[in-house]
Amino acid sequence: MERVLPFRFDEREKTFWLLDQRKLPFEEVWVPCRTAAEAAAGIRDMVVRGAPAIGVTAAYGMVLAHLSGEDPAEADQVLRQSRPTAVNLFYALDRMKPYWGNSQASLEEARAIWREVEDTERAISQHGARVLRGQVLTHCNTGPLATGGYGTALGAIVEAYRQGRIHHVWVDETRPYLQGARLTAWELQKAGVPATLVTDNMAGYLMSKGRVDAVILGTDRMAINGDFANKIGTYALAVLAHYHGIPFYPALPLSSVDPTLRTGADIPIEERSALEVTTVRGIPIAPEGFPAAHPAFDVTPHALVTGIVTEKGVLYPPFDEALRAALDR
Amino acid sequence: MERVLPFRFDEREKTFWLLDQRKLPFEEVWVPCRTAAEAAAGIRDMVVRGAPAIGVTAAYGMVLAHLSGEDPAEADQVLRQSRPTAVNLFYALDRMKPYWGNSQASLEEARAIWREVEDTERAISQHGARVLRGQVLTHCNTGPLATGGYGTALGAIVEAYRQGRIHHVWVDETRPYLQGARLTAWELQKAGVPATLVTDNMAGYLMSKGRVDAVILGTDRMAINGDFANKIGTYALAVLAHYHGIPFYPALPLSSVDPTLRTGADIPIEERSALEVTTVRGIPIAPEGFPAAHPAFDVTPHALVTGIVTEKGVLYPPFDEALRAALDR
Repeated sequence: MERVLPFRFDEREKTFWLLDQRKLPFEEVWVPCRTAAEAAAGIRDMVVRGAPAIGVTAAYGMVLAHLSGEDPAEADQVLRQSRPTAVNLFYALDRMKPYWGNSQASLEEARAIWREVEDTERAISQHGARVLRGQVLTHCNTGPLATGGYGTALGAIVEAYRQGRIHHVWVDETRPYLQGARLTAWELQKAGVPATLVTDNMAGYLMSKGRVDAVILGTDRMAINGDFANKIGTYALAVLAHYHGIPFYPALPLSSVDPTLRTGADIPIEERSALEVTTVRGIPIAPEGFPAAHPAFDVTPHALVTGIVTEKGVLYPPFDEALRAALDR
Repeated sequence: MERVLPFRFDEREKTFWLLDQRKLPFEEVWVPCRTAAEAAAGIRDMVVRGAPAIGVTAAYGMVLAHLSGEDPAEADQVLRQSRPTAVNLFYALDRMKPYWGNSQASLEEARAIWREVEDTERAISQHGARVLRGQVLTHCNTGPLATGGYGTALGAIVEAYRQGRIHHVWVDETRPYLQGARLTAWELQKAGVPATLVTDNMAGYLMSKGRVDAVILGTDRMAINGDFANKIGTYALAVLAHYHGIPFYPALPLSSVDPTLRTGADIPIEERSALEVTTVRGIPIAPEGFPAAHPAFDVTPHALVTGIVTEKGVLYPPFDEALRAALDR
């Protein structure tokens, strides 16, 4: 069961290598980063993606700054500007700050940040695996590629398969950007987990035929009441699972819970380029100039959630109490 | 408000022209058919598609047989084999049979078959328009391109816009074959109806935001209790509409009701090529060799249906009684 990580650090070569996710699954190309500026470009150009993976990349960007003799303050600025909406980016760079000017300590802190991602996701995977059985359906990409660790929802899926709890995965292709078809499918293939690709509009049919025993997927951001934002299509899956009496689990590190957000209504929805809808891999699929909408995320209310899979266990309603307790622990 | 038909007959040139729907909306190419064999090839190769349009094409195929001096019995056989699952094909060819050998009578019968499609769909469009308001969402392609007439669900949509009842249409792209993005978007653009393309997984989000006032779509086949088969994704839309209290209307000619089918459980689901899921316009979107499922249709139970739009009016529950009465009228 191969786990492919989105990056690797070669200390001897003083190089942080990024696996170019824009080219997956069609080509496996590794991009070398030898300076903080190159790491920042990798983040900005989406060679690497996924909040935890971006955080680790930024931390190693600071390591590269030391190794290549860049000014740490300038390197920090360049990295902060690479993806200004990524919370993990700022968190990682804040943690690196006390070690500016100290190459060895900086490397140790970057390693610690990475190791914490792995520890958190190992725990999420273990807890999540326990609630899965039979056949599960997932959406978007939540594997090691997106995190640098074991993944969240996909970590739980791979672990559940390893333990013999599940035997098959339905992979939503996840239009418009096709993270499911391109990345989740590729990761499950590498991990040797039996899986089948479906278009997003097939999930309801599969549920009606009794072929989905649970839905598990990631979380972009969660309010303290358990409402959460995630890739567009998540909300529809929650409604469909609810209608069919199928358990529905968001999985996330507790760092994705924002206690200042009371409900999902406080989470803004990012509208992205219509071109991602009217084209697929650069090929047009609609009449030229036809308008398209592209809400990149939707918000799922906690009433549709069976349990929340975190590194401190699976939380059950009332979610506000459970989340506050888990955050305090 | 332009209505683009999938074919035209030129009596002087003795040619039945087919608009090549495989190339839409990127190119508008007209393919000439001068023999029944050429019309059969157009049906087989999906230059023309949609049950009513296939029926009219087959009828004109017999006209071409007479004009080009082909043997009518052989022409009939070639046309019957072009798309063996299309019920309208056999219906049209059965109607043409009494006129074998009579070129003029044959042409008149083909015209009558076409005119009946138009009359039926004009009535469907008028009845359907009356139940629509605000913003509607539709799935797949049900316009003049698929029928040769005014369309079913899309006919009602265009008529409702003409009457000022609706002001905007959400067009589901309809993966895997993208009939919505390619054909419905193109037809609405030609008709001048304001519309926005969305991926299939955005419908739930739009409904939760109050931006969908009704769902109207086509029907492949309906059982006598109102359960119906239609393009994959229809069932999920029905569940989502139900959850949000949004009216949900299948539209169809009564000829698509099969009184020998008691419920939707009697309707077989066609499984199509996985390649249509793992590629888009011939471009791969998933790892090579990755398995995919492709149920081409799903079945929506009548309990999720608000009303059935037919040429004899909009039918309401109990549907079995209403459908039997409409079929007897």
